[in-house]
Amino acid sequence: MILYYAPGACSQASHIALVEAGLPYKLVRVGRDKQTEDGRDFWTINPKGYTPALELDDGTILTENLVILAYIAQLTGKLLPEDGLVRWRALEATEFMTTEIHVNFRPFFFNAPQPEKDKARQMLDRRFATIAGQLDDKPFLVSDRMTISDPYLFVMLSWAAMFGIDVPERLSHYLARMRTEPSVAKALAEEGLAAT
Amino acid sequence: MILYYAPGACSQASHIALVEAGLPYKLVRVGRDKQTEDGRDFWTINPKGYTPALELDDGTILTENLVILAYIAQLTGKLLPEDGLVRWRALEATEFMTTEIHVNFRPFFFNAPQPEKDKARQMLDRRFATIAGQLDDKPFLVSDRMTISDPYLFVMLSWAAMFGIDVPERLSHYLARMRTEPSVAKALAEEGLAAT
Ligand SMILES: N[C@@H](CCC(=O)N[C@@H](CS)C(=O)NCC(=O)O)C(=O)O
Ligand SMILES: N[C@@H](CCC(=O)N[C@@H](CS)C(=O)NCC(=O)O)C(=O)O
Repeated sequence: MILYYAPGACSQASHIALVEAGLPYKLVRVGRDKQTEDGRDFWTINPKGYTPALELDDGTILTENLVILAYIAQLTGKLLPEDGLVRWRALEATEFMTTEIHVNFRPFFFNAPQPEKDKARQMLDRRFATIAGQLDDKPFLVSDRMTISDPYLFVMLSWAAMFGIDVPERLSHYLARMRTEPSVAKALAEEGLAAT
Repeated sequence: MILYYAPGACSQASHIALVEAGLPYKLVRVGRDKQTEDGRDFWTINPKGYTPALELDDGTILTENLVILAYIAQLTGKLLPEDGLVRWRALEATEFMTTEIHVNFRPFFFNAPQPEKDKARQMLDRRFATIAGQLDDKPFLVSDRMTISDPYLFVMLSWAAMFGIDVPERLSHYLARMRTEPSVAKALAEEGLAAT
């Protein structure tokens, strides 16, 4: 499998999951100019233009982080139980992050006008409060083991730190601890991002 | 099961799926004031404040449309194959709609400043073009049978029509045809929305 990624982007969630699941993979970096590091036009690989994209061994391209995460889980039986409440809570938390947290970072990435950023920051405050409540004193978001929601939350919290958006203390601790998880440390190193 | 919904909201996708899957369900309408039609405070049911929310028979509350859709599918074996490419394409298309289409309607629902609406409309044009290409000449978005992505696409196209956002002709035809699907017609009638 090949993961098309951009360093520090949401594709990092899929990257961490690949490492955690123990699957063999190859990484191909996509630049801001939509050229891959091996000189191909990324638009022809994912016409939607964004990372992550996962190329399966038969050439099929899968997109959308949540779907790549669920695919990796189904392939390996890791990170997402096949049934039971933890399955649904993990999917729910991941979907919450894609639709309610990730999207509210867009005004910061695209440097939108200040009122738009202010509105987004207010929503982020509310949404991270919900996540902090759900995390409670657990080591991982949904259960005492890592699920697909954790790599995603890790990336969202890295972005919050990058844009100077304060999060509840419990989440700062979670971020620091996640950085020491072997799968996270490996993914960061492979993306050329030294742990700080 | 109880579906907490608002007429014409994205909860309609879950509503249509419940009908299509043939599951027994009860509907509880949530007003703009977050009061349910039976006089309860919706914030205590879903602290995130939004519909849809699905109450299982044991009282568990599931939220997030995509997750409710996948749950209904897993329960009944309908609308989403357990494995194979159609499964992943259906999840991918649904996630595309939640993260790339639904969110771009927010500026219209919340009557954001015009430049924000213009930006969102440009994105919607691009995103609906992608969907039209994927639909091609098929009766449903991902395969020749309805998957969880179709009720969601139906709602997104209803919103486009409501806000006067033009979509490719193929999608207007799809919208008209979906309105005649028995499950869609039943859900619209139950939400007090006469087919037009
Ligand atoms: N709906 C996609 C969104 C992916 C996304 O927003 N990717 C960003 C990186 S975090 C990207 O590649 N943006 C560049 C672009 O959209 O051109 C998903 O959930 O995976
Ligand atoms: N992330 C949620 C979003 C649901 C959502 O946006 N629901 C809207 C109706 S389409 C709503 O209830 N909005 C009212 C609110 O957020 O207060 C999902 O994907 O299900």
